[in-house]
Amino acid sequence: MGPGPSDVSARVLGALSRPTIGHLDPLFLQLMDEIKALLQYAFQTKNPLTLPISAPGSAGMEACFANLVSPGDTVIVCQNGVFGGRMKENVERCGGTAVMVQDEWGRSVDPAKVESAFIAHPEASILAFVHAETSTGASSDAAALCELATRHGALSIVDTVTSLAGIEVAVDRWQADAVYSGTQKCLSCVPGISPVTFSERAVARINQRTHKVQSWFLDMQLVMEYWGGDGKRAYHHTAPVNDLYALHEALLILQEEGLEASHARHLHNHQALVAGLEAMGLAMAVDAAHRLPQLNSVTIPQGVDDAALRSALLNEFDLEIGAGLGALAGKTWRIGLMGFASNERNVLYCLQALEAVLQSQGAPICAGQALPAARAALGQ
Amino acid sequence: MGPGPSDVSARVLGALSRPTIGHLDPLFLQLMDEIKALLQYAFQTKNPLTLPISAPGSAGMEACFANLVSPGDTVIVCQNGVFGGRMKENVERCGGTAVMVQDEWGRSVDPAKVESAFIAHPEASILAFVHAETSTGASSDAAALCELATRHGALSIVDTVTSLAGIEVAVDRWQADAVYSGTQKCLSCVPGISPVTFSERAVARINQRTHKVQSWFLDMQLVMEYWGGDGKRAYHHTAPVNDLYALHEALLILQEEGLEASHARHLHNHQALVAGLEAMGLAMAVDAAHRLPQLNSVTIPQGVDDAALRSALLNEFDLEIGAGLGALAGKTWRIGLMGFASNERNVLYCLQALEAVLQSQGAPICAGQALPAARAALGQ
Repeated sequence: MGPGPSDVSARVLGALSRPTIGHLDPLFLQLMDEIKALLQYAFQTKNPLTLPISAPGSAGMEACFANLVSPGDTVIVCQNGVFGGRMKENVERCGGTAVMVQDEWGRSVDPAKVESAFIAHPEASILAFVHAETSTGASSDAAALCELATRHGALSIVDTVTSLAGIEVAVDRWQADAVYSGTQKCLSCVPGISPVTFSERAVARINQRTHKVQSWFLDMQLVMEYWGGDGKRAYHHTAPVNDLYALHEALLILQEEGLEASHARHLHNHQALVAGLEAMGLAMAVDAAHRLPQLNSVTIPQGVDDAALRSALLNEFDLEIGAGLGALAGKTWRIGLMGFASNERNVLYCLQALEAVLQSQGAPICAGQALPAARAALGQ
Repeated sequence: MGPGPSDVSARVLGALSRPTIGHLDPLFLQLMDEIKALLQYAFQTKNPLTLPISAPGSAGMEACFANLVSPGDTVIVCQNGVFGGRMKENVERCGGTAVMVQDEWGRSVDPAKVESAFIAHPEASILAFVHAETSTGASSDAAALCELATRHGALSIVDTVTSLAGIEVAVDRWQADAVYSGTQKCLSCVPGISPVTFSERAVARINQRTHKVQSWFLDMQLVMEYWGGDGKRAYHHTAPVNDLYALHEALLILQEEGLEASHARHLHNHQALVAGLEAMGLAMAVDAAHRLPQLNSVTIPQGVDDAALRSALLNEFDLEIGAGLGALAGKTWRIGLMGFASNERNVLYCLQALEAVLQSQGAPICAGQALPAARAALGQ
C-alpha cells in the first residue's frame, strides 16, 4: 500500500510467467495488436500511436520530451511536486528552455498561472504537467490545462503515471497530445513498462523533425516501425515479452471491470480510508477537492517517528506505506489504494495496523474510532 | 532456438512470478546487492559500478555512449554486422563523430584496421566494438581490441549482449571500460534488462563531464545514487522488481554451474550441431575460428524458401530459428544454442526437424546423416 509498485494479482503473475516466445513470433505480434487496442481503451483514445515503451515510466516521460522538444524550444512546465521537476530536467537535456509554473506541493496546478505563462511566452510550443502527482497525492484539471495548450497553439505532454485506471484519463476528450503512464500503479501490473499515446498533431510534429531524436532507444519513428500499424514489424529492440504478457492480462482485467467501475471502486475505498484516518484524528495533506483516491497523503502528527512507524508496519504487519518525497519527506505518508490493492480488506487492515503502531508510539490518537467509521463508509 | 530471447527455465519463470515488493523494501535492496555481486562474477570484474539497466540491451548500449561520448568527441566504431551500425547511430546522436572501421559481415573485426584508424585519428577518445555479433554469429578478439584502445589512450565500449555466459567475457583482464549485455541470450533470463559495468577510468570520465548526460533515465550519476555502494539508495525510477527476481535467479544458476562449465557446455553442443549440419550437407556461414557456439549462422542452400521453412519449423515442430538480419536477410539462418537452450536434446531435435522440412521442400541434402554425426560428436 505504498505509492507503487502496487500489489500484482495472481492472475497477472501467472501470465507473467508463461513461457517466453520470440518477439517476432506471429502469436506475439497478435498479442501486441491486442495490447494496443486495450491501451487505447485504457487511455480513452483512438490514437494509432499507442503502445508500451519497454522501460519504466521515467523512460515514457523521456520518450515524450525527446521526440517533441527540439533545441531552442520553449516549454511551459507546471511543478507542484517531484515529477514536474523531472520534466524540467527533460526539457533542458533536450536543449529546450523550461518556463516553470510553480504551485505549492500538495495543491493542483493553477490554470490561471498557466494562462499567464502562455501570455508572457507566446513562443512556448509545449505545455507539460502532471495529472496525478505521485509525490503529493494531488490531481490537476487535465481537461482545462490541455484546452489552454490547444488554445495557445501548443502541444500538451501529460503525466498519467498514477492516474490511469484510478481516475478518469480521457486523452481524446482532453485533446492531449503526448501522454505517458506506468504499469505499476492502478493497472497493478509489474513495474518496468510505460504505456504512451501520441495524438495526430504530436505524430505530425515528430515527422516534421529536421534532426534525429537524441535517443535511439526512444526514437518513436523507429519504435513505430516495430509497433506500427503498417504490418512491417521491423526489428528495433527485443521486446520485454513476459512483461507484455502481464500487461496484456492487467489490461484485460481492467476491461472486464470497466473503467467507470474501476474509478468508482477506487473512490469508494478512498472515502472509507479517509473516514477511518480522520476518525483516528489524522489529517489528510491534500484538499478534499483534489485528493487522488489511489494515493492518500496523510500529515504525520507531531512527535511521531516516521521511519520507525513505517518499519514497524513493514516488519510487524507486512504492510508497506510510502514515505514523503522531496519537499514532503518526513512530513507526510503516502498510502496507496491502487488497482488490485484498492479493496475493502486493505482499507480495514491498514487502519488497524496504523492505529496499533501509533498507539505503541504513544501518539495522541482517538483509539477504536477508525474501523467503525471506515465500515460505515463502506456500507458494512 | 532463435537469436534470443532464448528459452527461460521453469526455475527462472518461478522467480519472476514471486509477489512484487517495493523497490525500496529492505529485502529488495539486499537482492540488489546480491545481483551486483553476481553480475561482477558473470562479467569477471571487480568494477563497483556494475548493475542492470532497467531496459533492454539497446538501452544498455545507449547508457554507455550517452555517458561517455560528449559533443565533438571522435569515436572509432567497428562494424561487422548490424550492431556496429547501431553504435554509429548512438555516437552521432550524442554529438560525436564516428570513424567507421568496416569488416565483412560474418568476419571478425580486424585489429590491424583499428590500429590504422587510431593512427589516422589520434584524437579518438573511444573505441567501440561488438564482441559477439548477433546478426552474423561471429566473435571478435576483445582482449586485443581493448588493449589497442588502452595503448592509444582511449576508452573501450564493448557489446557483450550475445557473448556473456556463452563464451569468455573477462572485463578486468581485457581492461574494458564500458561493457553492456542483455538478459535474454546466454543468461536465459526474460528480455528487458541490460547488465552493464564501468571501469574506474570510465567512472572518472563520467564524473569529469561538464554538461549533463542528454538522457535523464540513463544518466549513470543518477542511476548510481540508487544502485551505488554508499548505502543511500536515492529513488531514481521504479526498478523492474520482478524482472530482477528473474535475473537474480538466472545469475545464481550461472554461478552454480560455473562460467567455465557454461562455456564448455555451449561449445560441446555447438560442435555437435555443426557436425550434424555439415553431415546433412549444409555450410556454416562463419569461419570455424570465429564461430560463436551460442549462435550458429548457416548458409541457406540455393532454392530453399527461407520464410516457408521457418514457418514450417515453427508451426509443425514448435521450433523457432532466426532469419538473417540486415545484409544477411535471406542468406542465412541463425540457430541459437543459448543458455538453458544449449542442450543435447535441442541439438538433436533441431537437426531432425530441419532435415524433415528440407526434405519436404525437396532440398538436395544428405538424408539420415545428421543425427549419427551429431550423436558421435556428443559422445553418445
